[in-house]
Amino acid sequence: MARMTAWGVEGIGEIKPGDQLGDVIVEACSAEPNGPLCDNDVLIVTQKIVSKAEGRLVAIDPDDPLSHKGLVEQEARRVVRRRGDLIITETKHGFICANSGIDLSNVERGWAALLPLDSDRSARRIRDIVRARLGVNVGIIVSDTFGRPWRKGLTDVAIGVAGIAGVVDLRGTEDALGRMMQVTEVAVADELASMGELVMGKSDGVPVSVIRGADPSWFRDSSVDELIRPAAEDLFR
Amino acid sequence: MARMTAWGVEGIGEIKPGDQLGDVIVEACSAEPNGPLCDNDVLIVTQKIVSKAEGRLVAIDPDDPLSHKGLVEQEARRVVRRRGDLIITETKHGFICANSGIDLSNVERGWAALLPLDSDRSARRIRDIVRARLGVNVGIIVSDTFGRPWRKGLTDVAIGVAGIAGVVDLRGTEDALGRMMQVTEVAVADELASMGELVMGKSDGVPVSVIRGADPSWFRDSSVDELIRPAAEDLFR
Repeated sequence: MARMTAWGVEGIGEIKPGDQLGDVIVEACSAEPNGPLCDNDVLIVTQKIVSKAEGRLVAIDPDDPLSHKGLVEQEARRVVRRRGDLIITETKHGFICANSGIDLSNVERGWAALLPLDSDRSARRIRDIVRARLGVNVGIIVSDTFGRPWRKGLTDVAIGVAGIAGVVDLRGTEDALGRMMQVTEVAVADELASMGELVMGKSDGVPVSVIRGADPSWFRDSSVDELIRPAAEDLFR
Repeated sequence: MARMTAWGVEGIGEIKPGDQLGDVIVEACSAEPNGPLCDNDVLIVTQKIVSKAEGRLVAIDPDDPLSHKGLVEQEARRVVRRRGDLIITETKHGFICANSGIDLSNVERGWAALLPLDSDRSARRIRDIVRARLGVNVGIIVSDTFGRPWRKGLTDVAIGVAGIAGVVDLRGTEDALGRMMQVTEVAVADELASMGELVMGKSDGVPVSVIRGADPSWFRDSSVDELIRPAAEDLFR
């Protein structure tokens, strides 16, 4: 029977532009009581430290709570909805989220963190370093915290993946009663991101988690584009 | 450091109308190699077995693949979008989902399963039985599999809760840099439902999972209404 475990990785410390996240993560994981990383572990890495490592920081007016709103439009392909200070945009990556994914929490006062330019590439770089240094193949998910239109509360989703499926297609497999299932495309990368979030918390500075026990069939080449619904299929854009 | 583990509960078997799910689950968990249930375990129970136990089954024409579409409108408060055979509705509970949550997978041919009338009540009943029989306080989440407007792939979310928060409000707590955080209401019940789904799979007949290690502060009286965005706040209805 499937059994999965998740834990937060301590000791990452504050990330600065130019830090090589793969190295930082390998070193923090090696000091963990949970033992070294294994094949088919999944690392959930929060967007915020990826953005910091990649220097995606922009100075804003620390005394103007709305001074990042210009950046929001600059980072957007399109404004989807606007109500008061709330701006829902489609980012250049195709994500639909609040403020083009820009936020100010866990960033030094006077700075805003933009989303990474290409989080799949960021994930692949971490994956390559883990493989080069430890000889293991892991899945990497860069996660961010998005709202949902009809449900309250935020959940973490994948904005970049490497070595782990975005969506697993169970269409056409038989259900437990032997009927062909109709449509079951499971967004495993989003569910893994949510699972990882639960052991990180929001305010205690743990920006990476490890998930062990994921189904081996989920590990393959992938792109976050698997998770982005094309505009033509979308009823709510 | 937080550490959470999830596993699927085997041996539940086929559920029939009138089955008392709390008893079925207690017995299946007692036979598990993971040991007996503990205080602050979370049980994820899929909607399908709750609907079956509560007799929420309706006969449909087995030879007409669209014969349940009349039920979809009957179970809806409102049709939100329609394109071809796809109907997105707002259910009487306030959920916005495909086909009013009615589906035909893992149900015998010729039958459709409707959502439970009140999944919070269903969850409370299971929780009460677990407490009465084992003397432990667990959280119960009734889960279902919903789509998302802008992202491909389905994720499991909570449609009923008992003893575990729907949303945990981190507004006003300090982030790791000592700034007050702006808004971080985390939909922990949805993230737990997604975590549970990852160890159940869709087609292998495991309708219950256990999550151990959830933050003790998440356990309290609750309702799924915490997760439903009021229409007045909703930009996409």
